[in-house]
Amino acid sequence: MSFREKFAEASQRNGSLLCIGLDPDAERIAGGDAAAFLTAIIETTSDLVCAYKPNLAFYEQRGEAGYKLLRTVLNAIPEHIPLLADAKRGDVGHTAQAYANAIYDEWGFDAVTVNPYLGGDSVEPFVARPDKGVFIVCRTSNPGARDLQDLTVDAPSGRAPLYEAVARLAKAWNTRDNVGLVAGATYPAELAHLREICPEMLFLVPGVGAQAGDLTSAVRAGLDADAGGILVNASRSVLYASQGTDFAEAARAEALAIRDAIERERGAVRAQSPT
Amino acid sequence: MSFREKFAEASQRNGSLLCIGLDPDAERIAGGDAAAFLTAIIETTSDLVCAYKPNLAFYEQRGEAGYKLLRTVLNAIPEHIPLLADAKRGDVGHTAQAYANAIYDEWGFDAVTVNPYLGGDSVEPFVARPDKGVFIVCRTSNPGARDLQDLTVDAPSGRAPLYEAVARLAKAWNTRDNVGLVAGATYPAELAHLREICPEMLFLVPGVGAQAGDLTSAVRAGLDADAGGILVNASRSVLYASQGTDFAEAARAEALAIRDAIERERGAVRAQSPT
Repeated sequence: MSFREKFAEASQRNGSLLCIGLDPDAERIAGGDAAAFLTAIIETTSDLVCAYKPNLAFYEQRGEAGYKLLRTVLNAIPEHIPLLADAKRGDVGHTAQAYANAIYDEWGFDAVTVNPYLGGDSVEPFVARPDKGVFIVCRTSNPGARDLQDLTVDAPSGRAPLYEAVARLAKAWNTRDNVGLVAGATYPAELAHLREICPEMLFLVPGVGAQAGDLTSAVRAGLDADAGGILVNASRSVLYASQGTDFAEAARAEALAIRDAIERERGAVRAQSPT
Repeated sequence: MSFREKFAEASQRNGSLLCIGLDPDAERIAGGDAAAFLTAIIETTSDLVCAYKPNLAFYEQRGEAGYKLLRTVLNAIPEHIPLLADAKRGDVGHTAQAYANAIYDEWGFDAVTVNPYLGGDSVEPFVARPDKGVFIVCRTSNPGARDLQDLTVDAPSGRAPLYEAVARLAKAWNTRDNVGLVAGATYPAELAHLREICPEMLFLVPGVGAQAGDLTSAVRAGLDADAGGILVNASRSVLYASQGTDFAEAARAEALAIRDAIERERGAVRAQSPT
């Protein structure tokens, strides 16, 4: 089964476009036991998500213990939920191949985020696997995104902001129907523009919750013609909804609220669409 | 001691601007024991280098064994030789901080390569440490480099190729004298142009050897006004100089040849300079 199929099944089963980022912050974990914390979050939210997305940085900073923690987390996720590695790797071809081996084969992820700055041959080892999903980092949700991504460039595809040139490159790289984009929720106008350029790609949309994106406008901007095609990611707003012993119930309540808000927006979009 | 000082001391002690990339390729390691292989390479070359540069991808693809292998490799490197992590990380601020924690504190690296695509706040956690060195990926040595890096952009710093805009951003980010650039040896004209823009930065110059850059022209293009300021990286051409049991001696011979070729070029440049 391809990542896209696995995502579609999980999304339909849970009625959800919510992806939860599993990014353990030692200072914010109730009780301090990250494995117990994340396992409990997964148990209380796995019927509400279309995917889970561990960001590898939060495991790598824990050294060998982080290595074991990530294995525990991945093992705790039900098999039908897609595993998305937020890794943002990007390196020359033979090194990119080694990263792809690590993420796909050593860890068993179904999909990965990849940085486009090194160009086509740096992306190829990731997209060469038709069973896996590759989200090209396009327009991110942080303030510094404008330093490079918003610069106007003269690309072969035309004069446009760099992030748009990246979206058009991603389209060109998408010969196996497994390429998507990372496009932040904090910039709905850019998100809507990217949806025009890439009507059929999956978009990973971070920046909901702790990064203060407007959920409703982001969802409306990102949805494809079938009122789907996005993975709306929330991390800290779900994980740290409560710093008390009720963290897992609080995480479920927050996940449910986001999932349902997305579903309401999808319903509104469907109701407006010509049939 | 800052990375820059540690680099200067090791470079002077060994009369060398050669950095060896420690990238274990399972298929090319004589005998198959990567720890023994890399330890032997370090033993026979540590008087010839200014730094060692493990690329994390080659360890990550080995899973838990790779984790232990990297620890073994770092422990085998003499304390006076700088440790440069080729990681090319790039993520939003709080995630970049986690990567910086991993690379600087968990692993103990002195310097790191960082991808600029996410902009200033993604770079800040790395450059915030004045004792560490940060090489911003600017112009890489792979064919796909032209997909983004060579696009003409309208940047606040002027109309120029994107890689040049990145170099000017790196200058702006260099408030602690700890920022350098990654600039591939395969494009000496670009390297010379970057040296004009950033006369005092350290440049990490990959692409010598297996990536077929012309060593002499790259060195001449990259040297600063004091005939220094570059770390010329060779990986595969040194590590796999021989596939036989003489691999360590062959690696030493290749490292010596590259180091001495660089030194000859430095001597020639010094002889031409006005005193």
